[in-house]
Amino acid sequence: MKRIGVLTSGGDAPGMNAAIRAVVRQAISEGMEVYGINEGYAGMVAGDIHPLTIRSVGDIISRGGTFLGSARYPEFAKLEGQLKGIEQLKKHGIEGVVVIGGDGSYHGAMRLTEHGFPAIGVPGTIDNDIVGTDFTIGFDTAVTTAMDAIDKIRDTSSSHRRTFVIEVMGRHAGDIALWSGIAAGADVIVVPEEDFDIKDVVAKIKQGYETGKKHSIVVLAEGVMPVTQFAEELKAAGDVSDLRVTELGHIQRGGSPTARDRVLASRMGAHAVKLLKEGRGGLAVGIRNEQMVENPILGTAEEGALFSLTEDGKIIVNNPHKADLGLATLNREISF
Amino acid sequence: MKRIGVLTSGGDAPGMNAAIRAVVRQAISEGMEVYGINEGYAGMVAGDIHPLTIRSVGDIISRGGTFLGSARYPEFAKLEGQLKGIEQLKKHGIEGVVVIGGDGSYHGAMRLTEHGFPAIGVPGTIDNDIVGTDFTIGFDTAVTTAMDAIDKIRDTSSSHRRTFVIEVMGRHAGDIALWSGIAAGADVIVVPEEDFDIKDVVAKIKQGYETGKKHSIVVLAEGVMPVTQFAEELKAAGDVSDLRVTELGHIQRGGSPTARDRVLASRMGAHAVKLLKEGRGGLAVGIRNEQMVENPILGTAEEGALFSLTEDGKIIVNNPHKADLGLATLNREISF
Amino acid sequence: MKRIGVLTSGGDAPGMNAAIRAVVRQAISEGMEVYGINEGYAGMVAGDIHPLTIRSVGDIISRGGTFLGSARYPEFAKLEGQLKGIEQLKKHGIEGVVVIGGDGSYHGAMRLTEHGFPAIGVPGTIDNDIVGTDFTIGFDTAVTTAMDAIDKIRDTSSSHRRTFVIEVMGRHAGDIALWSGIAAGADVIVVPEEDFDIKDVVAKIKQGYETGKKHSIVVLAEGVMPVTQFAEELKAAGDVSDLRVTELGHIQRGGSPTARDRVLASRMGAHAVKLLKEGRGGLAVGIRNEQMVENPILGTAEEGALFSLTEDGKIIVNNPHKADLGLATLNREISF
Amino acid sequence: MKRIGVLTSGGDAPGMNAAIRAVVRQAISEGMEVYGINEGYAGMVAGDIHPLTIRSVGDIISRGGTFLGSARYPEFAKLEGQLKGIEQLKKHGIEGVVVIGGDGSYHGAMRLTEHGFPAIGVPGTIDNDIVGTDFTIGFDTAVTTAMDAIDKIRDTSSSHRRTFVIEVMGRHAGDIALWSGIAAGADVIVVPEEDFDIKDVVAKIKQGYETGKKHSIVVLAEGVMPVTQFAEELKAAGDVSDLRVTELGHIQRGGSPTARDRVLASRMGAHAVKLLKEGRGGLAVGIRNEQMVENPILGTAEEGALFSLTEDGKIIVNNPHKADLGLATLNREISF
Repeated sequence: MKRIGVLTSGGDAPGMNAAIRAVVRQAISEGMEVYGINEGYAGMVAGDIHPLTIRSVGDIISRGGTFLGSARYPEFAKLEGQLKGIEQLKKHGIEGVVVIGGDGSYHGAMRLTEHGFPAIGVPGTIDNDIVGTDFTIGFDTAVTTAMDAIDKIRDTSSSHRRTFVIEVMGRHAGDIALWSGIAAGADVIVVPEEDFDIKDVVAKIKQGYETGKKHSIVVLAEGVMPVTQFAEELKAAGDVSDLRVTELGHIQRGGSPTARDRVLASRMGAHAVKLLKEGRGGLAVGIRNEQMVENPILGTAEEGALFSLTEDGKIIVNNPHKADLGLATLNREISF
Repeated sequence: MKRIGVLTSGGDAPGMNAAIRAVVRQAISEGMEVYGINEGYAGMVAGDIHPLTIRSVGDIISRGGTFLGSARYPEFAKLEGQLKGIEQLKKHGIEGVVVIGGDGSYHGAMRLTEHGFPAIGVPGTIDNDIVGTDFTIGFDTAVTTAMDAIDKIRDTSSSHRRTFVIEVMGRHAGDIALWSGIAAGADVIVVPEEDFDIKDVVAKIKQGYETGKKHSIVVLAEGVMPVTQFAEELKAAGDVSDLRVTELGHIQRGGSPTARDRVLASRMGAHAVKLLKEGRGGLAVGIRNEQMVENPILGTAEEGALFSLTEDGKIIVNNPHKADLGLATLNREISF
Repeated sequence: MKRIGVLTSGGDAPGMNAAIRAVVRQAISEGMEVYGINEGYAGMVAGDIHPLTIRSVGDIISRGGTFLGSARYPEFAKLEGQLKGIEQLKKHGIEGVVVIGGDGSYHGAMRLTEHGFPAIGVPGTIDNDIVGTDFTIGFDTAVTTAMDAIDKIRDTSSSHRRTFVIEVMGRHAGDIALWSGIAAGADVIVVPEEDFDIKDVVAKIKQGYETGKKHSIVVLAEGVMPVTQFAEELKAAGDVSDLRVTELGHIQRGGSPTARDRVLASRMGAHAVKLLKEGRGGLAVGIRNEQMVENPILGTAEEGALFSLTEDGKIIVNNPHKADLGLATLNREISF
Repeated sequence: MKRIGVLTSGGDAPGMNAAIRAVVRQAISEGMEVYGINEGYAGMVAGDIHPLTIRSVGDIISRGGTFLGSARYPEFAKLEGQLKGIEQLKKHGIEGVVVIGGDGSYHGAMRLTEHGFPAIGVPGTIDNDIVGTDFTIGFDTAVTTAMDAIDKIRDTSSSHRRTFVIEVMGRHAGDIALWSGIAAGADVIVVPEEDFDIKDVVAKIKQGYETGKKHSIVVLAEGVMPVTQFAEELKAAGDVSDLRVTELGHIQRGGSPTARDRVLASRMGAHAVKLLKEGRGGLAVGIRNEQMVENPILGTAEEGALFSLTEDGKIIVNNPHKADLGLATLNREISF
């Protein structure tokens, strides 16, 4: 393989730039050329493609976001878009592509590979909700941003003996809530993967004040319910503390990536290039037990594939292993 | 004066701890003792008062919030509360008090002084909306927190070509919006002190994209209108960009104070103690042209007093000088 | 077990406070009492021991250092000190102890256990050089501090086309150098575990400038040689770039712990308490493959013990696994 | 004036990029074009000059250093270099220039103006040692970086009851030491502008430990003496505490500029453009009492000029006002 492409897709995440940089530098060090594809699959189909050099990625390892731009592009689910994309890539002499993004992006990578054009997925999303990897690029930074915000809110809640309910990102996964909540010393953490009883939350808040705490912090993953509704349910269930709510919002997607995210992105970007160089495709890179791994995106569970197709053509997740590492593990361990 | 008290009142602000520390250390270095009054005027009336030493304020200069706690206590507007407060202070042998807080707190200090109990006000609030000072304790930190958040949001807005409207604190004053907006390179800043035409905002956003910008950032002071309403008005006025809103919320009150806020708090706390030591009261400390100043809280404009009473007993502001330094100055200077 | 103690020993590390907090909270939630031992083993022998409550550890999760204080105390290698320490612990009704520190601290824990007093080691050191765990408490924070510093130095080196050699901590282990160097995009990383040829370093620097780089960053682990000597060797080997050196120094031990260190410390502290509650001792807690593990401190390699005694009484490390995870893995993967 | 140039000169400082951005944006908004001159006066003479657009300065407000590069270029003191520089500027159609840098850079601006080519100086240096302005661009950021480092060192010094002597930048001016020392709660601050008695320092350290402090922090400006020598003098004068030294070094020049530096740079850059637009030159921009001002660089004290020539051609400073605002003021105020 002489020339490869790289794109970022879906929601942006801190560390995507570090991953692009790793793809570019590793490819060049292996004697290949690299082209950047702007705005994800949309740019691929539109032919918004340009060469990248070592200088293109100078000093970007520390910057949030993705300098290639990212976009959701549902049209890529259709055969026509996929073929058009491959046509554009071939026009630029590109023989393989690294796709950095969420699991939506993986399906595009799978389709490209099925059409004979090797593509490798790299997990980039703050939510840490992608199968086949213990951690996604951007998660550690998002946890850090959320923790810093909660630390700040604690200052003001202590000064006024207030209860704060803080909504953090995570539509389907409570990982950001769980990690940032533990790291910031939250009193209660509510996540979508687990049932909870609002009365237990009220009791926990009350108990905190009774034992002399000056504030109470509840961290709520967005997937559970909107924070304003949660506050109403708290009051309805008997909470009488001085209650405030806040939604951290979009700051969680930004910021200079943490050391851990930069190292992870550097390893994953380099690993993806090596797989492409071997002519392999249809794989997603991951980190398992601190080691780089790769798994087929689509196939049988026995093959280690992340997703399978049912007989009637639906996509199912073979091994939703995240829940185990994240939630169950941490919850089982820390019972205070 | 042998023994003084110190309290924090109203909304908390980063740097209040640094100010308390300065009061304690300056007083001790001048041979006086210091007592801390918990929870503002409420704690004064309730007698929640305890001695402070050098060790009480060890390592607190870097911490947000106020370790004395703060509370709003409207009852202190009544004579009964004031007299009860003085009784409590005298019971502890306290002869003067430093009140760190917003201009609401100043009126309490004025009343105490009128009753023969000298009190000095120190401006502590993130909003920078107190007369008699160029800057308040906490303002620089709040601007920094808002700027950092906008920097983060810019990462994600650049990645997706989005327009963000970001609501920052400031009910009556646009200072946080103005400073953080300039510091973060916002495209539009909307503040309560100035009229604006929503169509100009739409035009500015459009123009930015036309000249090749990858995002558009609008900073809105909370005093103008809620951010969701502002977004609706933008759309109604013809904005067609990919629009998102975010409200920074309570994080703006927290965080370790900036160097500037810590130095300002140290100077103001020390200055307040010196005034008390001279037996003076009814004054508010300020910084003007980088120098410590003090002004009568109540009196005539000619005397330099911050507030006057009209014939029918209403309080008016003598010289709302903030608007001039902040808004008009910065706006006049930077026209890009 | 009804009452346990906790101490920090050796060099301090960010996250030690979070670990102490976890020990206290977990123990209380399991129905035990906790006593804090000041200044490590020295305080144990001196009887500087006092009860800790939930309030004692309020808001300390975010603070660097250790509020219990730490000290090196070689005298604890002697039987007399150990017996005296146990006597003091028993006087306070303490039945087991958690020791947070480096591997020097582990040996004390081993001795206490051998004398019938169960003790558990928790790895707290920034160097990440302790066997039996993939990561130590404090390492991620130290890497982050070093990375932030290198990011700052890059600003100024880019402005002036300079080469910087930056010495980071790590007497025996290059982990901080390796991780911070990768995270900050260093051009060359030199560690004690690997031989290097100074001429290769000169060539790498030269090559960087030739391909258009505006600066060159070399990260050097302190265990290799002093940074001034390294700079002289560079010049002697033909480097002609505008060369500066800097030693990061003690800032690397401080700072608010990162999210990752706080979560790690919370898990490890809780795990140590559970082991004590089961009456176990002589074990060191670790994280392996993201899961909590414990290993005998002393014993045979077959038993999974971290250290063995040779026939003539010398201590040897059974499985120096760190080198493999850190250096070899990262070096093998990232060849750019 | 239709087209202006901008360069950065001397040591780099955080906020220089923000100042360049302000020059570019203000000039364009006033209908002028802007060219960037790389590497300071060296690039001017060499003709390393290129056009800048709004996009050239996109997202640089938050970045440390200067993207134009900076260099010391003593040859510009000679007439030949100056005339060559003007020739190069005219070749590009440039009619005026903004010079961002230290007072060395000002003299070049003066010479250009004397040769009929208007040039305006903008004070950019971390040391805050330039006459004609209360604050220089970069100072607040350097203070913040030093304060953050001292905060971190305090963590570890508290854990071990240690005394730290921390050397910060400032060859001739103690401003960084003074502000960062106050902000970080240092016990002793030693600056080049003031005599000190080493025995007083020893006494202050001793007294701190006696009143129960867990550590002692001494901040030393580099202009006083090397930190290792200072430590030796401390010991010779009787200090018996556990003493460590650290030199903060080059990190102080880097980092994302603070809000205050970004606003200051934005105001100053815009102000410089307005002066050029009026056809004025030979002036240096400053901030005095929070307002933009400009002063002749060379002339008589009566005219408000910053420097005068003596009869025998030596340059003297007319009004070394910095010392007053910084040192004397803060020292007079804070006596604890």
